[in-house]
Amino acid sequence: MAVPSASTEAANRVSLLNVILGRRLASNEQKGHKIGVLTGLPALGLDGLSSSAYGPEAALTVLVPLGAASLYCIGPITLAILGLLTLLYFSYRQTIAAYPVNGGSYTVARENLGTWASLLAASALMIDYVLTVAVGISAGVAALVSAVPELYRFTLPLCLGMLALITLINLRGTAEAGVAFALPTYLFIASMGLVLALGVAKAVAAGGHPHAVVAVPSLGTGREAVGIWVLLRAFASGCTAMTGVEAVSNGVSAFKEPAVKNAHRTLTWIIAILAALLGGIAYLARSYQVGAMNQEKPNYQSVISQLTGAVVGKGAIYYVTIVSVLAVLCLSANTSFVDFPRLCRLIAKDDFLPRGFAAVGRRLVYSVGVLFLAASAGLLLTAFGGITDKLIPLYAVGAFLAFTLSQAGMVMHWRKQPADPGPARGRRLKMAVNGVGAVATAIALVIILLAKFIEGAWITILAIPVMLTLFKLVHRHYVLFEKQVSCPQPLDVSDYQEPVVLVPMRGWDHPTRKSLRFGMLLSTDVFALHLSNLEGDAAEDEAARVRQDWAERVERPARAAGLPPPKLQLIRTPFREFITPLLDQIDQFKRKFPHRLVAVIIPEVVEKHWWQAVLHSRRAHRLRSALRKREDYRVVVIDLPWFLQE
Amino acid sequence: MAVPSASTEAANRVSLLNVILGRRLASNEQKGHKIGVLTGLPALGLDGLSSSAYGPEAALTVLVPLGAASLYCIGPITLAILGLLTLLYFSYRQTIAAYPVNGGSYTVARENLGTWASLLAASALMIDYVLTVAVGISAGVAALVSAVPELYRFTLPLCLGMLALITLINLRGTAEAGVAFALPTYLFIASMGLVLALGVAKAVAAGGHPHAVVAVPSLGTGREAVGIWVLLRAFASGCTAMTGVEAVSNGVSAFKEPAVKNAHRTLTWIIAILAALLGGIAYLARSYQVGAMNQEKPNYQSVISQLTGAVVGKGAIYYVTIVSVLAVLCLSANTSFVDFPRLCRLIAKDDFLPRGFAAVGRRLVYSVGVLFLAASAGLLLTAFGGITDKLIPLYAVGAFLAFTLSQAGMVMHWRKQPADPGPARGRRLKMAVNGVGAVATAIALVIILLAKFIEGAWITILAIPVMLTLFKLVHRHYVLFEKQVSCPQPLDVSDYQEPVVLVPMRGWDHPTRKSLRFGMLLSTDVFALHLSNLEGDAAEDEAARVRQDWAERVERPARAAGLPPPKLQLIRTPFREFITPLLDQIDQFKRKFPHRLVAVIIPEVVEKHWWQAVLHSRRAHRLRSALRKREDYRVVVIDLPWFLQE
Repeated sequence: MAVPSASTEAANRVSLLNVILGRRLASNEQKGHKIGVLTGLPALGLDGLSSSAYGPEAALTVLVPLGAASLYCIGPITLAILGLLTLLYFSYRQTIAAYPVNGGSYTVARENLGTWASLLAASALMIDYVLTVAVGISAGVAALVSAVPELYRFTLPLCLGMLALITLINLRGTAEAGVAFALPTYLFIASMGLVLALGVAKAVAAGGHPHAVVAVPSLGTGREAVGIWVLLRAFASGCTAMTGVEAVSNGVSAFKEPAVKNAHRTLTWIIAILAALLGGIAYLARSYQVGAMNQEKPNYQSVISQLTGAVVGKGAIYYVTIVSVLAVLCLSANTSFVDFPRLCRLIAKDDFLPRGFAAVGRRLVYSVGVLFLAASAGLLLTAFGGITDKLIPLYAVGAFLAFTLSQAGMVMHWRKQPADPGPARGRRLKMAVNGVGAVATAIALVIILLAKFIEGAWITILAIPVMLTLFKLVHRHYVLFEKQVSCPQPLDVSDYQEPVVLVPMRGWDHPTRKSLRFGMLLSTDVFALHLSNLEGDAAEDEAARVRQDWAERVERPARAAGLPPPKLQLIRTPFREFITPLLDQIDQFKRKFPHRLVAVIIPEVVEKHWWQAVLHSRRAHRLRSALRKREDYRVVVIDLPWFLQE
Repeated sequence: MAVPSASTEAANRVSLLNVILGRRLASNEQKGHKIGVLTGLPALGLDGLSSSAYGPEAALTVLVPLGAASLYCIGPITLAILGLLTLLYFSYRQTIAAYPVNGGSYTVARENLGTWASLLAASALMIDYVLTVAVGISAGVAALVSAVPELYRFTLPLCLGMLALITLINLRGTAEAGVAFALPTYLFIASMGLVLALGVAKAVAAGGHPHAVVAVPSLGTGREAVGIWVLLRAFASGCTAMTGVEAVSNGVSAFKEPAVKNAHRTLTWIIAILAALLGGIAYLARSYQVGAMNQEKPNYQSVISQLTGAVVGKGAIYYVTIVSVLAVLCLSANTSFVDFPRLCRLIAKDDFLPRGFAAVGRRLVYSVGVLFLAASAGLLLTAFGGITDKLIPLYAVGAFLAFTLSQAGMVMHWRKQPADPGPARGRRLKMAVNGVGAVATAIALVIILLAKFIEGAWITILAIPVMLTLFKLVHRHYVLFEKQVSCPQPLDVSDYQEPVVLVPMRGWDHPTRKSLRFGMLLSTDVFALHLSNLEGDAAEDEAARVRQDWAERVERPARAAGLPPPKLQLIRTPFREFITPLLDQIDQFKRKFPHRLVAVIIPEVVEKHWWQAVLHSRRAHRLRSALRKREDYRVVVIDLPWFLQE
């Protein structure tokens, strides 16, 4: 009995939308391919690895006022970050093993810490994803304008153009793994690895003071002394280097069997490479005396650009490196475009976001989430002029809140596990690992909040309760909706009476004729309401004419066919209004026929062009709106359209 | 049988609209009061008399480059204008006698020269009214900022504020005659008369070279020689002093009996006073060496302000005069607000303007015309920065085109009159008077067009064909509309079959239950369409569940009540779309039941707040729009709303 739809045609029709977004895909065209370590590393590691392109620079930017002294500070700060990274590594290994289907912070928090904690994680993650896009794109463009300074003044348009391109690609749907991801990722690892290895070799050979191929701008003497406050702030900024490492835990189900083992290996590689990159950059920055420059000033050079120039000069390797950085940063924005809509779908499935977020779009992606992410990131980029340095203070708060909630959730997870038949030590150890991780990221979170509050973290802090409130409001509405709409009773066939039909009319015309005919199909009680704003004699004349017309045109043919003729009601409208007297009439009919529905047939002339609306009073439209506003369950509106032709 | 409407309550309800615009008036609250000469002069003469406040100044502005020589030119130019005025006076006396009900240019042209000429007059008049408002207000504000130079930089906001005030007053409805009009008009005549009389007396006493009480800025030596071109341009600008004198001919029906006699007397007074004012201003300008100043520069003083200062000094009389000028100019804008909507109503009644222009608003005024006039004048004022001098070149074209068409129409009128039983000379003389008037204003029109073309008259020239085209388009639409909608046939009761009812559904809920019940009232052929985008086993499971539910909840109670149960149709939507498969279904049902209407009942949940629309997919709304677009006469859409409560 199930009828297949013929809409395949529509999907293949040539239309502007089909050209731009690609043809509509059938649900069964979803392809399920699984990834291994080699393809998993680009697909899930991109976001984490690309953080090395802006994390160290963010820390160095904070240290700028210290002048050359900043180089003595970057070492300890990087060590602290690497320590934290190690803790996270072991913690997330356990999450992967425990949640081989979906170990995202939202799910882990919901299952172990309850609704509020999961919504807190959700808001933190959503903010984090939006910032990943904004920071990824702005840092990518920063790398580009370092290489081509002429483009400097187009920073914001370049950012927005890149955003539009990524959005379009994602609306068409991305085959997640694939050359587009793998190539730039490995190119990035290879070129950065080469530059860092060469740099370290040169530095060691030169006894720690290598000669820069391309001179590095002087750092000058410091304007400030080294203090705990500036170190904390630098650490807080540097923590952005750790964002994105949770991606593997979200995507374990995408791995080939043995999935957990493959995921573990991928995570190991990602963390190891990230650690090497961070360590290498910190060491070389110190050796080559490279500090951060102000992105808001022309001739800006990113730290990686300076470093690469110093180590290998501005030759082919330099440009390959810069291009790979740009590609990797933009693709890291892409990671958010894959993850954010999926997260929103989970939240929407739990009724905390509008259901549109859970709807599968024409290309089998969650289009609403994609567009929402693009709009939010676009707003952020515009508000901050596409300057990475200004976005960084907002960042990391979300990521570290999500880290903390996820790991705290894991602690609860282990606690709730039934005591193993085997030794209980295993469970306790796991609890300890996740617990230490949670405490460490919580401490980092507090440091980030304190250090970055005034510079922008307050925006994130403000956004979270706003989002929680919205989640709650949405949820309340859906609960209310289900309660009011859901219906345990069967079909009601009691007290079965035909409706009373009302047909407002201006005069005898085609739409009125069609409406009356339809009304007589529905009921034997059909009333035509003729409204007139004439007064005195003119009104009497008109009434006589209308009544005579009625007798000839309606009553006679109806009687001849043996049908009860519709009744004519003449209504004076001294205030020249249309809606109010009609509503009055409807109320009178409701009183007169207390147990019957009142069906109002609106004979409506439908214009061909929007501008024709100016030429008519759109009474049908206004009446429908007025009836809607009254929330009257006993009134049914029936449109009888009459279409104007050219 | 005519039922009185209960909407008096609504009219008296306290609402923001009622407070701002006044309560809605019943049609029979229209008061008919008639005017005499004393009240007619302010009511119908205001526009004409106030022209003296900017006409001479407009001529002098053109003469500025001549320096002191300009004073020798203003005399002859004023004489030419006064001559033209005299011709118009006699010509319009005849129009008043011939058209005692409505002698407006539009009507006279339509009745005597045909549709195109009447539409030409209509567009000319409409443009003229809009410019009267813009020029009246800007000249009034110019008088104000002459007296209070601190206000100079607020010229445009003052103009727009005045416009908003006048619009609001007119939306509330003005009692035409009344103290508000009479007082400023007579104050204006009295104070201007006093100043001019004093000035002339002083000038004569001083042998033509009186001493100015407040010094007048020097005119300097001329930068140009006197030439025919500059004189023609000055004459063209000065002709704006004649705008508005046709008002009496439009309003003869408003006079007490003997209406024509009263109208004639009023016209005589208006023309006489206007002539005296123009003559006096020209004489004093020459005696006191007063020229025009640039309104776009600070310390601007209007000609009347300079003259009054020179004659009586800047004392009480000066300020009374300036205030009365300001009041009269703004009230002259008001004249347009009375006449423009009435003109538009006449045009709309002939189906050349949207019918809304003929609708009587809540306060018994044609609100659409009022708002349209306000918007157009507001646009003009904004575009020209509220500077009278820039608006003047656009002006007068419309007025003189309307003068010419009206008088040419009168010539035709006399020609068409049957030969009198009395002497034919009367008719020939009348024809000659109107003919000479028509030729004179036509010549003036040509001069105005030539002299002012580049400065702005081209805008008017361009606007007229645009308006004519719009008139024609509107008319074509209404003709088409009437042709398609009007219906000579009686009610059709042939081939009388109940409709096929379709109910799209998501699942079993209150809206669906209500829709099915209503559908069963309409027809015995009710089909519920259950759409699902599931695939494979999940789809099979769902289908089985839905069928079982259907059997229990619908079929069983229907059969128990002895009614034919609605049929369930399961539809797969592999492309996750809603509209396309439904339209497919509708087409299939149309083929299956070729002679029956298809009624689609849309069970729609109606949100309480607009923002809730984000939370739902608005399928009902989208389906209704899609059905509309298909222009399908066999499909009827029935909304079954289900209202969400808080």
